[in-house]
Amino acid sequence: MTLSQIDEEVAKLLQLKAQLGGDEGKHVFVLKTAKGTRDYNPKQMAIREKVFNIIISCFKRHGAETIDTPVFELKETLTGKYGEDSKLIYDLKDQGGELLSLRYDLTVPFARYLAMNKITNIKRYHIAKVYRRDNPAMTRGRYREFYQCDFDIAGQYDAMIPDAECLKIVYEILNELDLGDFHIKVNDRRILDGMFAVCGVPDEKFRTICSTVDKLDKMAWEDVKKEMVNEKGLSEDVADRIGEYVSMQGGQDLAERLLQDPKLSQNKQACAGLTDMKLLFSYLELFQVTDKVVFDLSLARGLDYYTGVIYEAILSQTIPAPAEQNGADEAGVSVGSVAGGGRYDGLVGMFDPKGRKVPCVGVSIGIERIFSIMEQKAETSSEKVRTTETQVLVASAQKNLLEERLKLTSELWNAGVKAEVLYKKNPKLLSQLQHCEETGIPLVAILGEQELKDGVVKLRNVASREEVRLISDQNH
Amino acid sequence: MTLSQIDEEVAKLLQLKAQLGGDEGKHVFVLKTAKGTRDYNPKQMAIREKVFNIIISCFKRHGAETIDTPVFELKETLTGKYGEDSKLIYDLKDQGGELLSLRYDLTVPFARYLAMNKITNIKRYHIAKVYRRDNPAMTRGRYREFYQCDFDIAGQYDAMIPDAECLKIVYEILNELDLGDFHIKVNDRRILDGMFAVCGVPDEKFRTICSTVDKLDKMAWEDVKKEMVNEKGLSEDVADRIGEYVSMQGGQDLAERLLQDPKLSQNKQACAGLTDMKLLFSYLELFQVTDKVVFDLSLARGLDYYTGVIYEAILSQTIPAPAEQNGADEAGVSVGSVAGGGRYDGLVGMFDPKGRKVPCVGVSIGIERIFSIMEQKAETSSEKVRTTETQVLVASAQKNLLEERLKLTSELWNAGVKAEVLYKKNPKLLSQLQHCEETGIPLVAILGEQELKDGVVKLRNVASREEVRLISDQNH
Repeated sequence: MTLSQIDEEVAKLLQLKAQLGGDEGKHVFVLKTAKGTRDYNPKQMAIREKVFNIIISCFKRHGAETIDTPVFELKETLTGKYGEDSKLIYDLKDQGGELLSLRYDLTVPFARYLAMNKITNIKRYHIAKVYRRDNPAMTRGRYREFYQCDFDIAGQYDAMIPDAECLKIVYEILNELDLGDFHIKVNDRRILDGMFAVCGVPDEKFRTICSTVDKLDKMAWEDVKKEMVNEKGLSEDVADRIGEYVSMQGGQDLAERLLQDPKLSQNKQACAGLTDMKLLFSYLELFQVTDKVVFDLSLARGLDYYTGVIYEAILSQTIPAPAEQNGADEAGVSVGSVAGGGRYDGLVGMFDPKGRKVPCVGVSIGIERIFSIMEQKAETSSEKVRTTETQVLVASAQKNLLEERLKLTSELWNAGVKAEVLYKKNPKLLSQLQHCEETGIPLVAILGEQELKDGVVKLRNVASREEVRLISDQNH
Repeated sequence: MTLSQIDEEVAKLLQLKAQLGGDEGKHVFVLKTAKGTRDYNPKQMAIREKVFNIIISCFKRHGAETIDTPVFELKETLTGKYGEDSKLIYDLKDQGGELLSLRYDLTVPFARYLAMNKITNIKRYHIAKVYRRDNPAMTRGRYREFYQCDFDIAGQYDAMIPDAECLKIVYEILNELDLGDFHIKVNDRRILDGMFAVCGVPDEKFRTICSTVDKLDKMAWEDVKKEMVNEKGLSEDVADRIGEYVSMQGGQDLAERLLQDPKLSQNKQACAGLTDMKLLFSYLELFQVTDKVVFDLSLARGLDYYTGVIYEAILSQTIPAPAEQNGADEAGVSVGSVAGGGRYDGLVGMFDPKGRKVPCVGVSIGIERIFSIMEQKAETSSEKVRTTETQVLVASAQKNLLEERLKLTSELWNAGVKAEVLYKKNPKLLSQLQHCEETGIPLVAILGEQELKDGVVKLRNVASREEVRLISDQNH
């Protein structure tokens, strides 16, 4: 056999293999979802819907519109927005035409949308799935496909009014979701930067020291200090000065005190941040949410694009299972963090050909973690999660009443009643009642020869077994 | 310069280019969405929400649960399901790990879900986006990213009961969406196959002749016949025999008549289909929907996987703009087709390692076309589409009342009232009223010194300018 003959044979065999492989029906499929993703079953969907309803009602109560953007963007749109995390972006295969990537968050598409449509003010929410090729930790609620739930206010407004509304929204949502006690930490990037400056941190180290400070919710000060000194190259003195500031917590009073601080008061950035913080607290007072809000100088947050106030909501109860699911840059890194956000006045300008800025402030609700908590609560609760809303099952105790059952069911549908009927000619009464118990249908309408003759329907409460006889509209 | 030196130089230059290209901030972005996709602006979202609410309410009224599946599946899961159309599937780039593709429809993921979780009966709806690298015709509402809206009943039940419910659902939804007159064509794959057999079509040509018949809603019989004879190689005789059958339309009576047809009555498949058709119509009678349902022997539908009854809903009014948007295989090819579906008893078995079948019947609502129609209606209507649900704007006619405005707004939020306030310290009354008119806010609560003194709020109807004074809860 010559080499070319071998090649020919191999080609033939491969072609044959391709034909066989393409032959449907015989092939055994791998029955799984892609790594890091999951299906939502009806029970999970019922919980998801409940959570969404609470959150969307809140957004609507605050006069928000909603938009939607495609699941993929031009690859270029995402380039240079996420720093090191860019490696986690899902790219689409080059099948000819544009190079595309799955969206990594909702903020960059929002900024692209504003710049593209030259929108200078909008209050919008956007709830949609985003994609990250991260190391999944699904038992802890960390997925490669997960929801983000963002509310943002874009526009040139008077200081701190929209910022205060974002905090009010977080407060309302966490209250209504009933996840237990929580508090909201607030800080300002300008205060952080000013603090670093007066402590003697070199300009070029602001961002990296910021990330180290951000670890204070998981690490003791001693370890954070070690990282500053040993890894980031700060002197002990400088680190200690930072240590004094980042231990401070308070409210409006702390902002006032720091405005008198001999060092901070000399820094323009810090003063601007502190003045705004005072103003923010005065609005929060009017909104009656100061009981949960803490001005905390250790709050740093990961994302580079924040330019002003930043915040993060933390649940007080410790929930072991779902930790850290949304990554460091969404709802923050601390255990129990369920919402986060801040002001980013520069991002839209990155998309505008002329660099026109649109000031923005927003909040992202860490909805996947909230789903996990709600699912856990549902597991341990004695109350059954219903996956349908059916109010009544149309049943019969006797045979040969399928037509009457269908007719009554149809009349109920026409009247807007949520009704079901078993798809069997002669189902047993027991299996009809079991269906009600399994799915939580509260009422069963029972048809029988006698009832049909009398022109009545027997309506039974499944739980209490109480029965009433209703006069039927049906003419038999 | 040696060749290797040239290579080295080129490599250096390319690296430099990559560095420059990756330098954020300076780069001018192409401000667009990916080809064939679009953003939904708030107005489009408001219409989308309205349509979804009607459809979801109907699904819930019929006792359906809902599920969700990931936007991408293992590439293998989609292989061999779509025939020629497989070339339209979006693949993800191989970035290591599994090979993935974006979902092409919701039916294959549903079948995968059932097989994977060994679910043998469920009534579920699924509304989500699917992806096709099709030639977009966006002005006609045909996109590469578009919604599907599927309702399916899986399970072994008595004949035609779930099938009848699917038709009832289509009827209810189209009535409630108020899109004008419509009719629903019904046929059965077994009747088609039996008809082909008795007309003398060779077995192996059933599917291809089926596709030709499917064109009857857009082409005259003469042209369809030509295709059968010239392209598909049927004899004139055979084509003419088919022509007689496919011109038939009727109801239960037609099914009865065809059961007496000397040729069809000899075919087992056809008889089974016709008997079921009779039964279906008897149930549709009970559901009071026969006024819109036509047994039409020319209805064929594209998808291979149908095994029994098939149907398609067609709007009577001719709408020029949005034709054919969902592709031939979703809501059918005919102009005005807005829903379609049928029975597919074999698909789930393709995923089950042991080939266990789960009978299924379902319907897909052609929601993108419905969006287009609703958007056109909104364009021509004098009624403005509201994008928020705000009930009242808290305003003031005088300066320095920001705090009072914020406080009242907060109280309204706490009471569950949808309220807005302008984010300005001292907005003009005119601009506050303009905001109401632009966004359709019906009421404005006007605060003034006098009202605050009197402990009242002036509530004005924006449209009628009528005012009432309400006693305020606020203590000033």
